[in-house]
Amino acid sequence: MLINTGTELLLGNVQDAHLAFIAREIFPLGLRIEERRTVPDSEAIRHTLAELFPRCEILFVTGGLGPTSDDITRDMVADSLGLELHQDPQLLASLRQKLKIRGIKWAAGIARQSDVPAGAQVLPNENGSAPGLYLKANINPRIPSPHVFVLPGPPRELQPMFRKFVLPILHSIIRAPLSVERRLYRIAGVGESLVEETIGEKILAIPGIELGYCARPGEVEVRIIGEPKAIKQADAIIQSSLRVSIFSTADETLEEVIVKLLTKRNQTLATAESCTGGLIANRVTNVPGASRVFVAGYVCYANRAKTNMLDVDAKLIETHGAVSEPVARALAERARACAGSDYALATTGIAGPTGGSPEKPIGTVYVALASAASETIAKKFFFPADRETFKQLAAQAALDLLRRQILES
Amino acid sequence: MLINTGTELLLGNVQDAHLAFIAREIFPLGLRIEERRTVPDSEAIRHTLAELFPRCEILFVTGGLGPTSDDITRDMVADSLGLELHQDPQLLASLRQKLKIRGIKWAAGIARQSDVPAGAQVLPNENGSAPGLYLKANINPRIPSPHVFVLPGPPRELQPMFRKFVLPILHSIIRAPLSVERRLYRIAGVGESLVEETIGEKILAIPGIELGYCARPGEVEVRIIGEPKAIKQADAIIQSSLRVSIFSTADETLEEVIVKLLTKRNQTLATAESCTGGLIANRVTNVPGASRVFVAGYVCYANRAKTNMLDVDAKLIETHGAVSEPVARALAERARACAGSDYALATTGIAGPTGGSPEKPIGTVYVALASAASETIAKKFFFPADRETFKQLAAQAALDLLRRQILES
Repeated sequence: MLINTGTELLLGNVQDAHLAFIAREIFPLGLRIEERRTVPDSEAIRHTLAELFPRCEILFVTGGLGPTSDDITRDMVADSLGLELHQDPQLLASLRQKLKIRGIKWAAGIARQSDVPAGAQVLPNENGSAPGLYLKANINPRIPSPHVFVLPGPPRELQPMFRKFVLPILHSIIRAPLSVERRLYRIAGVGESLVEETIGEKILAIPGIELGYCARPGEVEVRIIGEPKAIKQADAIIQSSLRVSIFSTADETLEEVIVKLLTKRNQTLATAESCTGGLIANRVTNVPGASRVFVAGYVCYANRAKTNMLDVDAKLIETHGAVSEPVARALAERARACAGSDYALATTGIAGPTGGSPEKPIGTVYVALASAASETIAKKFFFPADRETFKQLAAQAALDLLRRQILES
Repeated sequence: MLINTGTELLLGNVQDAHLAFIAREIFPLGLRIEERRTVPDSEAIRHTLAELFPRCEILFVTGGLGPTSDDITRDMVADSLGLELHQDPQLLASLRQKLKIRGIKWAAGIARQSDVPAGAQVLPNENGSAPGLYLKANINPRIPSPHVFVLPGPPRELQPMFRKFVLPILHSIIRAPLSVERRLYRIAGVGESLVEETIGEKILAIPGIELGYCARPGEVEVRIIGEPKAIKQADAIIQSSLRVSIFSTADETLEEVIVKLLTKRNQTLATAESCTGGLIANRVTNVPGASRVFVAGYVCYANRAKTNMLDVDAKLIETHGAVSEPVARALAERARACAGSDYALATTGIAGPTGGSPEKPIGTVYVALASAASETIAKKFFFPADRETFKQLAAQAALDLLRRQILES
């Protein structure tokens, strides 16, 4: 079970990323999150703890450990378990030291972060101030309770703490060997209904297989869970039916796959983005090691930028319009020539909410790929959607075009 | 109350965006989400419905309305309320029509999306296939139940449906006038602890004020909730204490604020991004209307791209290193000159996980801003964090530098 505390979550001011992270981390141990509850920074924390204590074996509680007055999770957990809080002098000293290094002024509430419930194990926070806590099952013999992990709210603090300190404790709690496996397939270029039509019946005919789908802009994720033998059967069906449309079975993003493919081939990429506005470059440079393959990105948003940056013929734009196949081709070819890269991707389209016309409605996009080894390819797509989804779909289509081309060459 | 259904959510394959969206939409009606539960596509949906029916007045259920075999929410809700499902011939016809327009093949499971529980009101889905449902309170007199809204999983389907069809129904359910207000302040350039030290005590001294903080990479959000009179008092304190550090009181992103400021002044922007790899351009071009202010983005990732794209002196890079103040300045000034824009932002830094040195450790970044009206400004920052957080922090610092400069000029 997972409790996310935070009034900001319930007011919609911030989105929770912990469920996704923790679920993935604990799956290899054979653990699944049965339910997640999100509650405000209030007495609701206490009620939910009381409700869930008898209903689970392991409980993760996130958020509300910070220095401000609405951070009450530590107190609520201690109180629910009938444990006193004591200030840990070592923690206090290390807190002072940390803030000094970062040049952050000492504020009154900060000292509370060194309070520890009696008997709890401190989980060091190497990326922030508030430490986590581990309270073993039935820590107070008078109050039956599961194993409780109390973790800080910011993902960049929680995640490394989870990997370094929580997972080893979970390993020691769970001793049973894992008998169930999970496989995941990320698919581009095929819609959700068609994916199900292709594999659904065949997979569900295998006894003991759990099958799930999830559609995201420009991709479908298929996951199967079951005994190793059933997984092997299902895997063979999925692989042979969807083949090259599967871009990852290792839960990688399309950009991770591309950086890997290009690195292996010692090849480089440039981009010329109009309607995607830098999203492709941003996605590619999110991948560690991108600097080995990504040379340059031209975000030629204005028409004059297309001629200025990449010397695209102004007449070509005038004749065909900026959103056209010839301009997409020219952008890709000029970007490849200017950057001196092996491949160059280009996008030009109409993101909306304004700028559409009857011939080129909002959602129209041309994607082009120039490469050293073969002729420039261009494709037209139609993605009628809100602006950000449109950008995602166009970027995804462009990256998938590149992926398929690399695999073919 | 909000129930998010979806095994993929609990396995961590996808993140839920509905809580944040719905919470914000209903707040002006005086409604708050008391609790959110996330449950798998299984019998757990039925148990949770049964548990929550007597505990709330309005219940939102999201996800599991699609065409695939794991989409069982519609059936579970109908069953829990003791209502039969009937195929709606009009819905079926419109489904066939929709898929035809989009060129999607008809698949077996799709017809299930036109099943409607007896007495339920259909909420049209203008951005997808599965319609939503509204089941009024106690729709089956034998089973006490709250108002139930069943909504599709994909945010780009749910969100327009919510605004167009759910909000009017909520308005008719809630007739009480709103007596409580909410204000929100988004702050850049000041840390969370310092924000609390500056305003915390003074705000909490006002009777009846609820105060909350939320820290995100490069920004802090402060929110206050209370009666209009108390809100007015608190607002005066926050505004006078934090002044120009508050970049929005209207829940806008930093990039939205910048596009607005530049549009109002009829000014333009270019970017030269090394370590942020297109993130700044991407954020700015996410804003509708960005094409009026954003001219061009140079993602000069490789060193040779810095000289090729922007003609930065190779010797300058050799002498000071690519990550240095002189190179940041040169990038900003050259980008402004090449793009012919009023402002140009540049970033150069070490994102990691490799590439650091004792003098320039991972996390070092120089941000520069060139402008027509004043001298180029450069600032050094140190953001030791994972790669994506580093990029976000650097982009945020650059955008905030620009915002403050625009306001001063």
